[in-house]
Amino acid sequence: MTLPFGFRYSGVTCGIKASGKRDLAVISTDDTAVAAGVYTTNLVHAASIDWNRSITPSDQFRGIVINSGNANACTGDEGVVANEQMAMLLSAQLDCDPQQIAVLSTGIIGHQLPMEKLQTGIPAAVSAGGSSTEHFTAASEAILTTDQGTKAVTRTVTIDGQEIRIAGMAKGAGMIGPRMATMLAVVTTDAQLTPTTAQDLIRAAADHSFNRISVEGHMSTNDALVLIASGKSSAKLDSAESRSAFADGLNDVCLQMAQQIPADGEGASHSIAIEVSGAASDDDADTIARAIAASNLVKTAVTGNDPNWGRIVSAAGYCGVDFDASQVGLKLNGHAVFSAGQPIAFDEASVSQAIADSFETVIELTVGAGSGTASHWTSDLTTAYVEFNSEYTT
Amino acid sequence: MTLPFGFRYSGVTCGIKASGKRDLAVISTDDTAVAAGVYTTNLVHAASIDWNRSITPSDQFRGIVINSGNANACTGDEGVVANEQMAMLLSAQLDCDPQQIAVLSTGIIGHQLPMEKLQTGIPAAVSAGGSSTEHFTAASEAILTTDQGTKAVTRTVTIDGQEIRIAGMAKGAGMIGPRMATMLAVVTTDAQLTPTTAQDLIRAAADHSFNRISVEGHMSTNDALVLIASGKSSAKLDSAESRSAFADGLNDVCLQMAQQIPADGEGASHSIAIEVSGAASDDDADTIARAIAASNLVKTAVTGNDPNWGRIVSAAGYCGVDFDASQVGLKLNGHAVFSAGQPIAFDEASVSQAIADSFETVIELTVGAGSGTASHWTSDLTTAYVEFNSEYTT
Repeated sequence: MTLPFGFRYSGVTCGIKASGKRDLAVISTDDTAVAAGVYTTNLVHAASIDWNRSITPSDQFRGIVINSGNANACTGDEGVVANEQMAMLLSAQLDCDPQQIAVLSTGIIGHQLPMEKLQTGIPAAVSAGGSSTEHFTAASEAILTTDQGTKAVTRTVTIDGQEIRIAGMAKGAGMIGPRMATMLAVVTTDAQLTPTTAQDLIRAAADHSFNRISVEGHMSTNDALVLIASGKSSAKLDSAESRSAFADGLNDVCLQMAQQIPADGEGASHSIAIEVSGAASDDDADTIARAIAASNLVKTAVTGNDPNWGRIVSAAGYCGVDFDASQVGLKLNGHAVFSAGQPIAFDEASVSQAIADSFETVIELTVGAGSGTASHWTSDLTTAYVEFNSEYTT
Repeated sequence: MTLPFGFRYSGVTCGIKASGKRDLAVISTDDTAVAAGVYTTNLVHAASIDWNRSITPSDQFRGIVINSGNANACTGDEGVVANEQMAMLLSAQLDCDPQQIAVLSTGIIGHQLPMEKLQTGIPAAVSAGGSSTEHFTAASEAILTTDQGTKAVTRTVTIDGQEIRIAGMAKGAGMIGPRMATMLAVVTTDAQLTPTTAQDLIRAAADHSFNRISVEGHMSTNDALVLIASGKSSAKLDSAESRSAFADGLNDVCLQMAQQIPADGEGASHSIAIEVSGAASDDDADTIARAIAASNLVKTAVTGNDPNWGRIVSAAGYCGVDFDASQVGLKLNGHAVFSAGQPIAFDEASVSQAIADSFETVIELTVGAGSGTASHWTSDLTTAYVEFNSEYTT
């Protein structure tokens, strides 16, 4: 794991989580850096979202503080003050202004943050920080909530013999909506970027990754994807070709992180990849893919290793996109089960076995002769998901 | 149970269902009657939907044949022929044209109908028909699939001393989308209606009833609501007041049937009534109510008797309707849990107990000072739902 130059990472326990697991992360830059972000579009959102929107994009960025276990959302005026205090606690440690600090929170909605724990926790996290893989991993752990494991991806892009390092960490397992959810991700890189370029790149990366996944379609109050660029790499991004190479690397890091989220969906027994083709436009294909991903009947069929293609085709039919039902074809894990709008003979037992044998179920739907395509990733729906989410707060 | 004059009902076993339960219903009129219907808007729909659209509204109607256990959807050209054969089998018995016959099918998608069973079953059903309550109940049973019980509602409207009788039967427990689903309903009445009036009345009744319920939001290929009016009542619907009185009765029959569907939602441990107020318009309120109803996280919270208001408020926030988050208030089963955009102190244990003690959970959300309101009914999401829908075909 090669980390970008110019960063310090930290992940500690400050006592927000009753479990005693790590619940506070700090990422700081050695010098002023560039930062940009994309955030939840939920009208009901956390104080941190308003704060981060007001301070990014920036070329005076110094650090980000992230707590897990408490979303500080729907917490009213007290929550707004608490969020600002978190920024001030980190800025005091880094000897900068609070406006140079981003704040992320994730966890339960509607409970006030335990500020006394953060007052001691944030200085302790800064003291514990460092640039090693262990420090990065500790931070990756501290942002988790119901995740079963860390979601960290690193990548190196070489431009004219000079390396740019990219390292991302993400969290998310439930309340994963189709346009970001209880999803937090921070990507650090030592690329030389302007704030405008950073904003354009992270927006495009989100559209190609986190905006194409869902668990249950519930968009959260706290979603955020933040890109921090230290500029410590010597590589010059002064040509279209070099910028494209960096964008590819960034997109790939985001996509790899994003795909880990539904694969770690609460209680998931399968991840589901949905590939739609033949639509009139990419947007149409995307709408179809999202409708299939959002269907509990599709999800439960996959849970039961059931090649119930009728549920998939009918979900496509009600999403509002126009297509010719007589041209629809469907493959499940490579096996054709429906063609040209007609059921076809297939061995249900062997297709069911193919679904059972693979953690990933691949749904390939074509709806005509158009050039529109889309991909979407989700998880199945299990009794474990229901049990888990029936027992969250009480 | 007072049934309308001019109808014969029948419900028999013809062998489509492996269980041996009733699976074929016929409702016929003694003379030509008026019929109108509203049907699924799913692009992928059963052959029966196209057929019924082509023959209603009508004033030459004679009967309807309904099979359960097989939806005859996604069955291609063979399915279209099978549907027409069903109409022909009944028209031969009633000595009329096939175009005077409607056809409804519900059950599994993508399997061809066993026509040899219908060839003997439809004549047998006509022979077994009659006008008694027992005949009506047998028909109500024969249209069921995964329902736990019949959904039948009767009502009498009196106009100037003359009675109009209305009797409805419905089925639906799963694949219940927010705009009709695997839902079939037939309403018989002896009112004197024109085809145009019947069509207007049944559309309005659907909007106030079946279009406001959901189980998991998966709109089906076969939804239909058909109104058949024999005209045998002496009551005259020749004033605005009398038409309004009849419309109220029809709406009430449809609403009572509709509300039984989520209450019988597959595996449901609670029905959920969602009342939204204070929106800028009724449409806005409706969009908010549907988003809350569609959230698996809201549903699972109710399953767990968990007063997790954050999930409800955040679902309202992502549905695309504009409102002032600082004016949001929420009550659960009458207990205030969130007010003016701020969390308020409440006894979580007693609210949880209130949810546990009542089959119906009432969610009252206000989003401001507007006059827009909406109601929606759904069911919670349980492990039984997941188990049931993971084991449907395999």
